[in-house]
Amino acid sequence: MTITINLCADIGEGFGAYKIGDDEGMLKVVRSASIACGFHAGDPVTMHDVVQKAKKEGVSIGCHPSYDDLWGFGRRRIEVRSDHLEYMVAYQIGALQAFAAYAGDKVTHLQPHGTLANVAADEEDAAMAIGRAIRSVDRDIIFLTPPGSWMEKAGRKLGLRVALEGFCDRSYDDDGKITSRKVPGAVHTHPEVVARQVLRIALHGEVETRTGKVVPQRVHAVCVHGDEPAGVACAQAARKALEGAGVRIVPLPEMKFD
Amino acid sequence: MTITINLCADIGEGFGAYKIGDDEGMLKVVRSASIACGFHAGDPVTMHDVVQKAKKEGVSIGCHPSYDDLWGFGRRRIEVRSDHLEYMVAYQIGALQAFAAYAGDKVTHLQPHGTLANVAADEEDAAMAIGRAIRSVDRDIIFLTPPGSWMEKAGRKLGLRVALEGFCDRSYDDDGKITSRKVPGAVHTHPEVVARQVLRIALHGEVETRTGKVVPQRVHAVCVHGDEPAGVACAQAARKALEGAGVRIVPLPEMKFD
Amino acid sequence: MTITINLCADIGEGFGAYKIGDDEGMLKVVRSASIACGFHAGDPVTMHDVVQKAKKEGVSIGCHPSYDDLWGFGRRRIEVRSDHLEYMVAYQIGALQAFAAYAGDKVTHLQPHGTLANVAADEEDAAMAIGRAIRSVDRDIIFLTPPGSWMEKAGRKLGLRVALEGFCDRSYDDDGKITSRKVPGAVHTHPEVVARQVLRIALHGEVETRTGKVVPQRVHAVCVHGDEPAGVACAQAARKALEGAGVRIVPLPEMKFD
Amino acid sequence: MTITINLCADIGEGFGAYKIGDDEGMLKVVRSASIACGFHAGDPVTMHDVVQKAKKEGVSIGCHPSYDDLWGFGRRRIEVRSDHLEYMVAYQIGALQAFAAYAGDKVTHLQPHGTLANVAADEEDAAMAIGRAIRSVDRDIIFLTPPGSWMEKAGRKLGLRVALEGFCDRSYDDDGKITSRKVPGAVHTHPEVVARQVLRIALHGEVETRTGKVVPQRVHAVCVHGDEPAGVACAQAARKALEGAGVRIVPLPEMKFD
Repeated sequence: MTITINLCADIGEGFGAYKIGDDEGMLKVVRSASIACGFHAGDPVTMHDVVQKAKKEGVSIGCHPSYDDLWGFGRRRIEVRSDHLEYMVAYQIGALQAFAAYAGDKVTHLQPHGTLANVAADEEDAAMAIGRAIRSVDRDIIFLTPPGSWMEKAGRKLGLRVALEGFCDRSYDDDGKITSRKVPGAVHTHPEVVARQVLRIALHGEVETRTGKVVPQRVHAVCVHGDEPAGVACAQAARKALEGAGVRIVPLPEMKFD
Repeated sequence: MTITINLCADIGEGFGAYKIGDDEGMLKVVRSASIACGFHAGDPVTMHDVVQKAKKEGVSIGCHPSYDDLWGFGRRRIEVRSDHLEYMVAYQIGALQAFAAYAGDKVTHLQPHGTLANVAADEEDAAMAIGRAIRSVDRDIIFLTPPGSWMEKAGRKLGLRVALEGFCDRSYDDDGKITSRKVPGAVHTHPEVVARQVLRIALHGEVETRTGKVVPQRVHAVCVHGDEPAGVACAQAARKALEGAGVRIVPLPEMKFD
Repeated sequence: MTITINLCADIGEGFGAYKIGDDEGMLKVVRSASIACGFHAGDPVTMHDVVQKAKKEGVSIGCHPSYDDLWGFGRRRIEVRSDHLEYMVAYQIGALQAFAAYAGDKVTHLQPHGTLANVAADEEDAAMAIGRAIRSVDRDIIFLTPPGSWMEKAGRKLGLRVALEGFCDRSYDDDGKITSRKVPGAVHTHPEVVARQVLRIALHGEVETRTGKVVPQRVHAVCVHGDEPAGVACAQAARKALEGAGVRIVPLPEMKFD
Repeated sequence: MTITINLCADIGEGFGAYKIGDDEGMLKVVRSASIACGFHAGDPVTMHDVVQKAKKEGVSIGCHPSYDDLWGFGRRRIEVRSDHLEYMVAYQIGALQAFAAYAGDKVTHLQPHGTLANVAADEEDAAMAIGRAIRSVDRDIIFLTPPGSWMEKAGRKLGLRVALEGFCDRSYDDDGKITSRKVPGAVHTHPEVVARQVLRIALHGEVETRTGKVVPQRVHAVCVHGDEPAGVACAQAARKALEGAGVRIVPLPEMKFD
């Protein structure tokens, strides 16, 4: 039986004259892309450009919403009322849908960015706010969430399509969550480490934590970070390892969800 | 035969703690509303709120795009490449569509704001950029434009639905264009003046200019400015005058376009 | 012996086309003003304008720094590294000093705005960050702080000039802190209530809390909020009450600090 | 007789997570730096950082003001009233002075950025607005301007200290102005070309234009662009060429102005 998995990266995280990450390189490797929508990064010109390129490469596109925090690149916690957060996320989905329309395409998933992702993994209010935004704007959008998180629960509660995500390039703690960026070594930059971790996730549904413990990690998508300098190299290592092991890599909408 | 016309205002032009205009009052009077989308004014919370209220009042909603100029309230000219302008407008349409989806509604028209409206009336490049954004995101959106402007021409050239707009509360120059805000007396704030002008437009398809000349002004929609302190009073005066003269006031999508 | 106190308001909290509060009215009543510096409100044009008007009225000027949160009007908590907060505050002081230079004047105090004020009252890191910004940019600037707060302690630890502030128009809790805005009744809008509270603070160095308890409140300055609709009326009530009781109202730099 | 000249670059043009240019490398080569102040680039953390590094390297610091245009990196023309422009520039000077105070240093020059520099070179209103900002905030600040520009004239008219600038890494047109960035070849990226041009400016007070014509270019400072990828290499080439020819390179305040 062939194992099937999605390989996903966040892209489009430049702003105006500022560029971060090699989006073109990344789009040749991954099968899904989470695109910044102007709140932590991204702007109309960048969004249009990466959506067109994703289309050309057959990469499915998703919304990568954030707090309104350009200066902090979405990595600062902002205390937002949950209804405000909901509309903020809805706004970002809509903006990206405009560029999907340009490409004759659809926004097929949503994966929160940075600190919003951390907060919504741990807190019901934020997770439900994001889920409600998806349900109200387009309930077919797949909610890409960490397994066991409040986001997963919110997605299921709201009757959304939920996909589980693991990370190729992030260290894990013993509780099965990714290690905070504040901890040294939280981001794997060595392609070999990435390859080993992605195989363990894809083939065995588990991950080795920082302390050497093995914890379950059954996911539909494995993600790499497009804003890391080693991002494309890590994505390539992950893809090569997966293909070498006979794993089939598909866009997220082609995965089966329970 | 009954004359039919649309009455439209721009609303949702606050930002966060800042409020401008009496949106609730205005939505009880007009039949269509052009909603700020975050570039000169407006934010996700405000947009959600006014779309819900418009829905409740049976007011059709439109996108009111602008240059990215919150400080200048979209009243400063910014030299933008026309492809950049196009994507900027597309982004704003998409963002508003998200809130229309919340209300089970659609964005049915687009009317540019402030200096962008002036520039796109006079310059082909800007007019075509806005038209292309409409065509790419949703070609059913009605392009609300001044008669004889480059926007009208762009709309027709691109095969869009084009509606013509007149203003109840703006003085006109002899060339049939509204008087620049830099000129004293450019904005009518007296309801009686507004009533007289709206009747002349609706019943006779003409307007009296600042110099006393009469110029043609055949339009589908008459507009008032929601950000003016006298806005609601002017809208009420316009509506009362129109109804008193037996004119039927309808949402923009119910108008017939050639 | 004459009692002397300062009467202070926060002003200049508009942004571009958006206005909040009656700055001109307020500047005729108070003797010191804390001016928004562009992070939660305020812009170069507004800042220049209010500094000129303050100068004309003999009102001393202070910096009213905030988190970078225009949308949230500085009322959302943002998790900022304390060194980043320090430089953010320094930037705002410097910007205001430029307009003080225009008026041949100096920035003589600093009073944090909104949530930053709440956080720095309760947390040493934020309080010290603000204090270090003052010490580095101009150590003669008076740090206007709630009595007993971490800001007061930070100011004393860093050898700064510290003034204590009370509020005319805010309810107090039994711990001597102002009631959170989230609690109904946190803001007094009735001039009589304001007058009673300001007298109790000025004449007796105490305040009655929400529960009817009396707690000490010995301060150099009594503050009103310029962004409240009833702001000027409250300031007038406070001034009239103080003057009626023979209290001398002076600009902050004329107060004696220990 | 030894020829003396200043070598200057614009630096600090990142924003939050975004970096542009090698500021550390540049600060080891040049003797003066024009620092972005948050309007087209730059933020409090970046400003503090580069001012500290400039101090350490003995590099004099200047303000590099821009239109409020982060998205456009200050390269879009924005129509601003001249009084608004004046206060915008004043704000940026003040903000940088705060960080100069941290370093026990002063802001000693001002050099406008991008499109503001082009506009103020050609138009009296903008040039005078910038000059008035300097005069009001600190009249000792040297106005660094292209020879023959409206900025030079405005500076002289207002009694400011005026320094003339030439560019090592920009092509010149026959009218003695730098070639617009819209023209291919406007930016020299080859160190040899830069070295040849800087020597011709420093030793002979002239420059060869795109068409091969030779035009006078007598200046106090030769500038390189910190945001160009080849920036540091060009600065090094310029410095090496100048030193090889026995030219003394000094911070701008050490130059003599008439």
